[in-house]
Amino acid sequence: MELISIIPGFQPKNDPALLAKAEALKPELIYTDYPAPSMCRVNGEEMSVEQLASRPLKRGDMALLDFGRHLVGRLTLRLSSTGSHQDAPAYFQIDLAERLEELEEDPEAYHGWLSRSWIQQEKLHVDDLPETVVLPRRYAFRYVRLTVLDTSPKYQLVLRGASCRAESAADWKNVSNKNIPDKEFKRIYEVSLATLADCAQEVLEDGPKRDRRLWLGDLRLQALTDYISFRNTDLVKRCLYLFAGTRFPDGRMSANVFTSPEPMADDTYFVDYALLFPVALKDYLTETGVTEALNDLLSPALEQVEFVLSNWVDAEGVLLPEAGRQGFIDWSETLDRTAALQGVLIQAIDACAVLCGMKRETEKAARYERLADELRQAAKARFWDEQEQCFLSNGQVSIHSQVWLALAGAMPEGKARAAFEKALFLPGAPRMETPYMHHYYVMALLEAGLKDEAEAHLKAYWGGMIRARADTFWECFDPRNPKSSPYGGMIVNSFCHAWSCTPAYLIEKYFL
Amino acid sequence: MELISIIPGFQPKNDPALLAKAEALKPELIYTDYPAPSMCRVNGEEMSVEQLASRPLKRGDMALLDFGRHLVGRLTLRLSSTGSHQDAPAYFQIDLAERLEELEEDPEAYHGWLSRSWIQQEKLHVDDLPETVVLPRRYAFRYVRLTVLDTSPKYQLVLRGASCRAESAADWKNVSNKNIPDKEFKRIYEVSLATLADCAQEVLEDGPKRDRRLWLGDLRLQALTDYISFRNTDLVKRCLYLFAGTRFPDGRMSANVFTSPEPMADDTYFVDYALLFPVALKDYLTETGVTEALNDLLSPALEQVEFVLSNWVDAEGVLLPEAGRQGFIDWSETLDRTAALQGVLIQAIDACAVLCGMKRETEKAARYERLADELRQAAKARFWDEQEQCFLSNGQVSIHSQVWLALAGAMPEGKARAAFEKALFLPGAPRMETPYMHHYYVMALLEAGLKDEAEAHLKAYWGGMIRARADTFWECFDPRNPKSSPYGGMIVNSFCHAWSCTPAYLIEKYFL
Repeated sequence: MELISIIPGFQPKNDPALLAKAEALKPELIYTDYPAPSMCRVNGEEMSVEQLASRPLKRGDMALLDFGRHLVGRLTLRLSSTGSHQDAPAYFQIDLAERLEELEEDPEAYHGWLSRSWIQQEKLHVDDLPETVVLPRRYAFRYVRLTVLDTSPKYQLVLRGASCRAESAADWKNVSNKNIPDKEFKRIYEVSLATLADCAQEVLEDGPKRDRRLWLGDLRLQALTDYISFRNTDLVKRCLYLFAGTRFPDGRMSANVFTSPEPMADDTYFVDYALLFPVALKDYLTETGVTEALNDLLSPALEQVEFVLSNWVDAEGVLLPEAGRQGFIDWSETLDRTAALQGVLIQAIDACAVLCGMKRETEKAARYERLADELRQAAKARFWDEQEQCFLSNGQVSIHSQVWLALAGAMPEGKARAAFEKALFLPGAPRMETPYMHHYYVMALLEAGLKDEAEAHLKAYWGGMIRARADTFWECFDPRNPKSSPYGGMIVNSFCHAWSCTPAYLIEKYFL
Repeated sequence: MELISIIPGFQPKNDPALLAKAEALKPELIYTDYPAPSMCRVNGEEMSVEQLASRPLKRGDMALLDFGRHLVGRLTLRLSSTGSHQDAPAYFQIDLAERLEELEEDPEAYHGWLSRSWIQQEKLHVDDLPETVVLPRRYAFRYVRLTVLDTSPKYQLVLRGASCRAESAADWKNVSNKNIPDKEFKRIYEVSLATLADCAQEVLEDGPKRDRRLWLGDLRLQALTDYISFRNTDLVKRCLYLFAGTRFPDGRMSANVFTSPEPMADDTYFVDYALLFPVALKDYLTETGVTEALNDLLSPALEQVEFVLSNWVDAEGVLLPEAGRQGFIDWSETLDRTAALQGVLIQAIDACAVLCGMKRETEKAARYERLADELRQAAKARFWDEQEQCFLSNGQVSIHSQVWLALAGAMPEGKARAAFEKALFLPGAPRMETPYMHHYYVMALLEAGLKDEAEAHLKAYWGGMIRARADTFWECFDPRNPKSSPYGGMIVNSFCHAWSCTPAYLIEKYFL
């Protein structure tokens, strides 16, 4: 998706007090060592790691290690040589992949619009063997392939062993053992938590391979899943403070925040992501009741809604198309976002009402309740089409509009199932492109009482990733083409992605 | 040249006492910081480093730094970003070159018989800018080119500065200022010493780019040049002990020694290199008179000669062709080495006589003197051709045979000039391929009193490298094709090479 929401002349304006609190909440990472897998392949031939440790590797040879699970961490290679004494540097390439299929891609052939710097490939020289090489960067991977680029005619390389020191802020000791009789749900639940755990680093990252960064839309979903599993609520709090502490001079929150070398907002604004801040804060306070966060973050939360209300809502209580163009909702190129964003805005105002109630600011709370109702009525009046029996956004039917306005309570009673079906199956209507959008679709099904449909969709979509051998849930998944990419090459896709981790939350809340 | 001299079933057998002395002589390296050059080029456009420090570098941009002199050391790059906040790793390539022309070569197109691992190219990811990157490996270079492989559409890389921490065991403070009126000689002299200085590391390396290793034939020439300049005689002594301490079980010395992770002979034997050990030891003791080295190293020196005498010399005092095939002499593929090696052997025996004299072992000394004379006579009888008026080696005329037998004192009186000319200009005769051989040719001219010819050759050959913009003297130089390589690609050539450093010695000894 083209980033139309870059702020021109962007100047950051940080709040040191809020950021100091974020810094104090930085988690101690938990390090876990994973030894090399017991079996590996050299040029396709399966062998044990003991056999590998005595297998000379010459120019062009490839050794493939499968760690058997998705890992985020540092790789160590124990290398030596055989033959005559090493008489030239060893030169080899390391490719790291979350999915085996990534290794079939040629990095040189990637010409997509994301940076090729995300491709997890390193070319290394080792002057003196034996050597234990600790690769300094952090990678997200299950598979490691070493390709010998050159040794010399007189010696060969030997890969005596490998290990990974995995890093995560998620503590599995906090996760209680769940009895999930349905086997498909059980596996989906496990993979959800593996996804969340590997995204949980010094912030809740969107993906540990890419972008390794804190995005507001992802954060809200990670937090929901965290509350039913790792209960790393201080990390959620830290992330909320990072967004509040890096607002733009006009009070808006960025769609994402950088944390290195120090916290800084990205110059990208998504109206829906910003509006999800009060929603995420409400979720957090409902879970934890932490008064400090209520006191510090209420005002930044309200600012997100107030900015939209005073700039982009017309006299009838409907979001202007200008705001619609600054939203995310989903990756679709053709989607008209106005109606869906109206749904997000209503939920944000609802959340503000709850937050003000928590703060015992009853007048403010009442105002937001009133506003939410007005915008709900305005949504019905402007977007609901009696003839089509669904919401139209500037004339366009989309599942996105139905889902977000249904979640906002604007869907007329008893109409959800038919409206969803119409939008899903209408030829030419924008499709759901991201697990992020699929999550809200399942939420909307469940909130509408359509539990069988929700279960079927969970098993079709997230179950489909598992059938395509996912160890963690992916940034994007097209069941018709598991190798698809929105970036012009699946080699830069993230295959462990925050916004895909929610099935555990949905199963826990609605099915257990 | 094909290595026919690899020892099958080679087993090292080190002498701990000798190696302990070598270890104790390991030099403290001298570190010198060189800042980035004041001018540089970006995509061919010249600019100051100040301009470079504010020049955004996007995908495909190239920044070329010329440090203005040959350096051996570690490179530091000070990197930052411009544009939006860095939202993807920076990915770039660093090419380091001793000669500018190397940068025109495509490493991917190199398919020669030396390892491509010698090519000084690194591909690096930097996750968090700004960053000061200290490349961990040591390089030999004057030119550094940074090519941006990718940033992202939102930010560009900035190269704020660069520096090199150079490393050498050579101390310029020990070099006295020479008055050399001849300008060409002056420059040749300077470049000679620069070459030696950059090869002087923890051992006297053959080339700091490649092989970064101690070779016996090179060592002898480095030592000669060292005695008239840096006087790093302890480093020479260390190298002599390394060869003596890593002999094969049968007493022979390897052509070269590895020093990492600990000293170990290479499994390669060159009969002429081994025979140069007593010669180099004699040179060293003549310079220094160090009794310890005489006591420790006399026996290993004599062993080199004795092995050849008892295995490969026939009843008439002539080296067997079998030994001829295990010599180096020069890179020529067609050269018959027997006569030249006979010349090396005679000089080695002469040196043994001197060494035994130093040790006051007069009987032994007398035996070696007698032997040397016998072999000189045998050489004249077997190799001198009255009709051709030059030496023939198994019927072949070569400059190599003339030079080495002349240096051994076997050339009939007054015949040198004509014999040299015949061998140099005979169509189809093996040509001199290496500066190593050119050195001994000039030595032979000077020893024969042909000073004008020697001066002309010094200025033509080493002066030719300077005219081709050499900052240090090269491993190989074909005046007709300065881009030639014996390896199938000049990108792996060494352009600072020990065996080319001798003109300073020759000028000092014969012209000042």
